[in-house]
Amino acid sequence: MDFDVMKSLVIKEENLGKIVLLVMDGLGGLPMEAGGKTELEAANTPNMDKLAVTSMLGLHQGIRTGITPGSGPAHLGLFGYDPLKYEVGRGALSALGIDFDLRDSDVAARGNFCTVDENGLVTDRRAGRIPTEISEQLCKQLSEKVSIPGVEVFVRPVKEYRFLLVLRGEGLKGNIEETDPLFVGHKPLPATATDPESEKAAEITREFVRQAAEILKDEHPANMLLLRGFAQIPEWPKFPEIYNLKSIAIAMYPMYRGVAKLVGMYSPPAAHDYDEEIDMLEENWDKYDFFFVHIKKTDSYGEDGNFAAKVGEIEKVDALLPRIMALDPDVLIITGDHSTPSVMKSHSWHPVPVLFYSKNNSRPDNVTSFGERACTQGSLGSRFPAYELMPLAMAYAGRMEKFGA
Amino acid sequence: MDFDVMKSLVIKEENLGKIVLLVMDGLGGLPMEAGGKTELEAANTPNMDKLAVTSMLGLHQGIRTGITPGSGPAHLGLFGYDPLKYEVGRGALSALGIDFDLRDSDVAARGNFCTVDENGLVTDRRAGRIPTEISEQLCKQLSEKVSIPGVEVFVRPVKEYRFLLVLRGEGLKGNIEETDPLFVGHKPLPATATDPESEKAAEITREFVRQAAEILKDEHPANMLLLRGFAQIPEWPKFPEIYNLKSIAIAMYPMYRGVAKLVGMYSPPAAHDYDEEIDMLEENWDKYDFFFVHIKKTDSYGEDGNFAAKVGEIEKVDALLPRIMALDPDVLIITGDHSTPSVMKSHSWHPVPVLFYSKNNSRPDNVTSFGERACTQGSLGSRFPAYELMPLAMAYAGRMEKFGA
Repeated sequence: MDFDVMKSLVIKEENLGKIVLLVMDGLGGLPMEAGGKTELEAANTPNMDKLAVTSMLGLHQGIRTGITPGSGPAHLGLFGYDPLKYEVGRGALSALGIDFDLRDSDVAARGNFCTVDENGLVTDRRAGRIPTEISEQLCKQLSEKVSIPGVEVFVRPVKEYRFLLVLRGEGLKGNIEETDPLFVGHKPLPATATDPESEKAAEITREFVRQAAEILKDEHPANMLLLRGFAQIPEWPKFPEIYNLKSIAIAMYPMYRGVAKLVGMYSPPAAHDYDEEIDMLEENWDKYDFFFVHIKKTDSYGEDGNFAAKVGEIEKVDALLPRIMALDPDVLIITGDHSTPSVMKSHSWHPVPVLFYSKNNSRPDNVTSFGERACTQGSLGSRFPAYELMPLAMAYAGRMEKFGA
Repeated sequence: MDFDVMKSLVIKEENLGKIVLLVMDGLGGLPMEAGGKTELEAANTPNMDKLAVTSMLGLHQGIRTGITPGSGPAHLGLFGYDPLKYEVGRGALSALGIDFDLRDSDVAARGNFCTVDENGLVTDRRAGRIPTEISEQLCKQLSEKVSIPGVEVFVRPVKEYRFLLVLRGEGLKGNIEETDPLFVGHKPLPATATDPESEKAAEITREFVRQAAEILKDEHPANMLLLRGFAQIPEWPKFPEIYNLKSIAIAMYPMYRGVAKLVGMYSPPAAHDYDEEIDMLEENWDKYDFFFVHIKKTDSYGEDGNFAAKVGEIEKVDALLPRIMALDPDVLIITGDHSTPSVMKSHSWHPVPVLFYSKNNSRPDNVTSFGERACTQGSLGSRFPAYELMPLAMAYAGRMEKFGA
């Protein structure tokens, strides 16, 4: 929905209904073989199934039919932002996710340490997934040793082989193509500006890469780096103002705290496990109206192709439900940001199951379990846009006026 | 989907998944009496039903809810072009369908020979469906005898009573209303421009009609003509470039080869029967990525009100399926361009059944037969826009990148 329409209908009062958005990353799945069950269908989820009886079910599409969402756009969709209208580079998200104080003219990029052979060809795009501690040392070296006149260069560790690069200087624009060749056996690409305004930052980036390659050349396996998602801070309407919701994002990984902060939510320091996430939910229950709770590992195991482990994570989340329901939320949405079928080991375009619980005014459908096939019969529809969830949550939370008289 | 978004996500590699779009023209139907079966439901289609078990089902709308599609827009929708954004007159389609070399400033119209009585009132809009051979002679006469200064006039036979009129001259614009009164008992309408720029071509058209009426006046039954679908060549993004698909259109009738060529597909000479169409599919299998196969007679029999014959054609197509499946397509879409219920004897707005088969990463729904009622329960939804089929086909064929990170 157009945010101007939304704002005109939002009730500007305190202490109205509370909304919980519980996102199991990459929740949607596929059977491992024809005729089999998906991860969610295979999981034993008595609490979700019980909730399904009185809830509305369906499947959302994060972006559009056939489009496989990245994590950033997928979450923007869940927050009510049409990802085709609100595009943001991963660099900016990463910066926010590690609490880096990104400024308006900064150019940020997401980096991977990688491994190259003696000919400069990439042999491992993730440098053997080096641990965060190694990455921290390398980032420190790069921050200290790289020197480019007129520019401040920040290199910050994120997680494992991932880091953040920020260039700070006068008149920088970040429309720059990634240097990741995406396939092993190729050289890293030169940073290339896609418009004349970004040429200065592209030139600085190439110089950074040149110096970094020299500094890293004797390291192993992280003897080179790749840069992606060049971006700057976008100027968007903020989630708490659009919806009049005091909003908190509870997550274990920087990326998801980042996208939430990008739209103006508060995000406390990262939780370390699911129980701590629910602890934080409980502790903050009285202070906020909207609670985004992010579960990462469903996606990670999907990416690993580990069907059984993904099933296991879904079951762990199911076991958390009684604690969430004990808080008596007015609206609870259980869904994913996109599908990550174990059989594909990647994000996919398949619609994502949604369980939409409302304490009040619920009009349940005939679906009584939470799974992909079951959700195709749900009243929310089998391929609705993710950005329709927030208006629905607002309505069921009693937070919207009538349109017209 | 916006073609710029699509293009940005399309994988630019060779030899990715192959897509077959099998269109039974006018497939969608209605029961002849309340409680009865539709044509597709009545047809014995063991091969399609078997495919349905592992496929996704649903019903598409060619244009928008409640809108009855013409053949041109309906096919554009199937090709991913929103017919409300990409409008084309039938004249331009007809020209392409008979391999007429239509040029940028030409104005083309589709003609019908018709029968008028002594008062000039239309008594048969199709002149008793005169055979193509008669039409050929009439077109030859008109081409030779009509003379309008400063304009080249082309009159070309299409099929049976249908012909193509092309006006070639300086500064012609084709925004002209049809002369077909659509009902018998009325006089043909005068060609009328809908904008000042088209007044010149409208005046030429009126002169053409005046001379043609004189030339045809002693013929029977084709003693007059009607003109529809005035059009010029549109400048659109081309299908093969949007999707990076080497594309071939296999059809028996000019109209459908025409619309395919309009969007840049290659179309070999018309096939003469279904078997020859599948022969052509097999012969070209290695050379193309996308195969549009068009079946006409389902629509023709629907227009005739011949329920049993339409059922029979559907069954003939079902019998062709094993030959198509033997080619091992990555994606096979079986659908129609619009509905043509025999009980209505015309195109209609009713949603059109879709069977969407994918070799890989299929997430089947609970529908296990191919029919209108069954498809309402399918995971594709019961009223989705036809132009969503191509993005979906592209995704399942493994031809699209992830959106964002």
